[in-house]
Amino acid sequence: MSDGISSGISAPTVPAHGVRLAVDAMGGDHGPAEVVPGALDHARSHPEDQVLLVGDPARITAIAGALPANVEVVPASQVIEMHEHPALALREKRDASILVGCDLVRNGKADAIVTAGHTGAAMAAAVLRVGRLPGVDRPALAVQMVRAGRPFVLLDIGANPDSSPENLAQYARMGAIFAEKVVGIPTPRVALLSIGEEKGKGDLRIQRTTELLDASDLNFVGNVEGKDLVADMADVVVTDAVTGNVVIKFFEGLSTFIFDLWRGEFRSGIRGRLAYLLLRPGIGRIRRIFDYERAGGSPLLGVKGAVIITHGRARRRMVGFACEVAANTARTGVPALIAEALREDAARAAAASSESGPDAEAPVDAGAVS
Amino acid sequence: MSDGISSGISAPTVPAHGVRLAVDAMGGDHGPAEVVPGALDHARSHPEDQVLLVGDPARITAIAGALPANVEVVPASQVIEMHEHPALALREKRDASILVGCDLVRNGKADAIVTAGHTGAAMAAAVLRVGRLPGVDRPALAVQMVRAGRPFVLLDIGANPDSSPENLAQYARMGAIFAEKVVGIPTPRVALLSIGEEKGKGDLRIQRTTELLDASDLNFVGNVEGKDLVADMADVVVTDAVTGNVVIKFFEGLSTFIFDLWRGEFRSGIRGRLAYLLLRPGIGRIRRIFDYERAGGSPLLGVKGAVIITHGRARRRMVGFACEVAANTARTGVPALIAEALREDAARAAAASSESGPDAEAPVDAGAVS
Repeated sequence: MSDGISSGISAPTVPAHGVRLAVDAMGGDHGPAEVVPGALDHARSHPEDQVLLVGDPARITAIAGALPANVEVVPASQVIEMHEHPALALREKRDASILVGCDLVRNGKADAIVTAGHTGAAMAAAVLRVGRLPGVDRPALAVQMVRAGRPFVLLDIGANPDSSPENLAQYARMGAIFAEKVVGIPTPRVALLSIGEEKGKGDLRIQRTTELLDASDLNFVGNVEGKDLVADMADVVVTDAVTGNVVIKFFEGLSTFIFDLWRGEFRSGIRGRLAYLLLRPGIGRIRRIFDYERAGGSPLLGVKGAVIITHGRARRRMVGFACEVAANTARTGVPALIAEALREDAARAAAASSESGPDAEAPVDAGAVS
Repeated sequence: MSDGISSGISAPTVPAHGVRLAVDAMGGDHGPAEVVPGALDHARSHPEDQVLLVGDPARITAIAGALPANVEVVPASQVIEMHEHPALALREKRDASILVGCDLVRNGKADAIVTAGHTGAAMAAAVLRVGRLPGVDRPALAVQMVRAGRPFVLLDIGANPDSSPENLAQYARMGAIFAEKVVGIPTPRVALLSIGEEKGKGDLRIQRTTELLDASDLNFVGNVEGKDLVADMADVVVTDAVTGNVVIKFFEGLSTFIFDLWRGEFRSGIRGRLAYLLLRPGIGRIRRIFDYERAGGSPLLGVKGAVIITHGRARRRMVGFACEVAANTARTGVPALIAEALREDAARAAAASSESGPDAEAPVDAGAVS
């Protein structure tokens, strides 16, 4: 509990004991050329951690050269390509790097895995091989969203279409634990994404989830709407896969579109170029706010290990941050804390539903909405 | 069919015959002070149209002065304030300007209504008093979204949580008619917002809606994801109320956030100010792309008249554009075209479900998903 190790974006204090980190060296648009150097950066800056590079030994060592003492290569002869159908590819490529990496976690040889590979295949591999934590109905994919100041955690961003209110309430709990332990936010404020801030608004799923979160002991601050996502109103924002996925991809598209417009102006003519030179420090400040690479990648929460799925386009720097987030997720014991919290939530729900007084919480009825 | 009359953003050719436009003079954050001048701008630039200013005659004439020949005041003694509960306020304030305005449309004394008032109250008033078109299950709220080049139409942005696939397919039809007649896009490309472009992705509602749109004679170009919203991939994007509302409000929040960051840099110190002067033409170009005021406001599609709900914060200029969009929606006969198209769609669906060959389309089963 002594040394401060910086996480993806913020810098909570996490215990400095070492963890074992499997890295899918073959995944992503750039493959080993970017993943291996990123993983080695982590190994060098965190000598207490052990890094297992999973993939083609010849290609890995050609890039890595002499390996640091805390790095090993674990052979895997196949790779799931970005264009493949996840379920099909997982069935056909039994020695794919993502499967071999997940098996290291399953067999207790690694505490965490990082991949830049196919998101769908990585999620499926993690659920199949690493396995769900007890009490978890559906693992959720989360992301640290940038805004001015501290980032917030948004989930689910695409793991589970057709989630139930009970699923969403579990996402809230899992997101809050990740926000506290890895992003470093004590007692994170949890909000539900809706059409408006009033509790009666939104669809039936949102209304039922609002009741569940109100009845929980989470620091639930209510419902927020789209414009609030850039304001500092919550540390964990819960939503369903479709809306969450649209938000994160629209964010990517819209911010790129706007910054490209400015870049175009800075490059057009002598006036633009001069303005660019004058504004350079300010452009740096804005760029740092939108530096999504520091978030490292998306944690898949609810599985028996720390699983971080980084961007398919991630380069060395972002892979390094992904390794750090994965290591900190394992180091702070996020999976065990999630299992424990869900066990307590289930006990609390059972106790509440067995109460008969007028103050008892309404019993959970998944069938009504899901 | 001769004169070109510019619409909110683009400039389709619409017939120049006059329409009668009711304007809720009292609604919005700024009330008559901005709404009345905006409506008068429209009356002056469109002498063929008749404008009915609905509200407090004393307040309206104090702002308007001598009225142009094509402007009249229609008295209404009450106003629904922005903070009121819509259903409650509509029951209690029988002489509210939004209700009196909607009754003008209902009674055939106006073809269109514009309001900057409470969105929920305006939608409810329009459905109650103007009424749904035959065949319309649920009217939908649409918006013209800005991007580089031509805007696209996004709907539903908040009228109906818990829409069924059949509702979403109707939104597609209604949005396509608005896009063609008012935005001026012949044979608009229709897309469905989803998690990915592959047809199997998304939740059950999206999957079923994809089938319905595939079976329609709309120019359905498939599913798009969040990042595609800034690309020129579709002219009409269909989504459910929650995702649509989150997208439009996140757009507002994120673009404001980014532009505020740039504004801060342009105002900080002599370097920023100098850069601003150098970049002024470019800033103007970017500002024109993000000039959402030109869209005028959100059409409520599926009711028996042209209903445009503009921004609560709309000022004179945006109110003027809202009047133009409302007038063009009425002038091009959008409501009648929607009723006709939905009648044809229903006939086509009935014919398809009575076919018994292997090529027949699957019959519609709303209960499975909605």
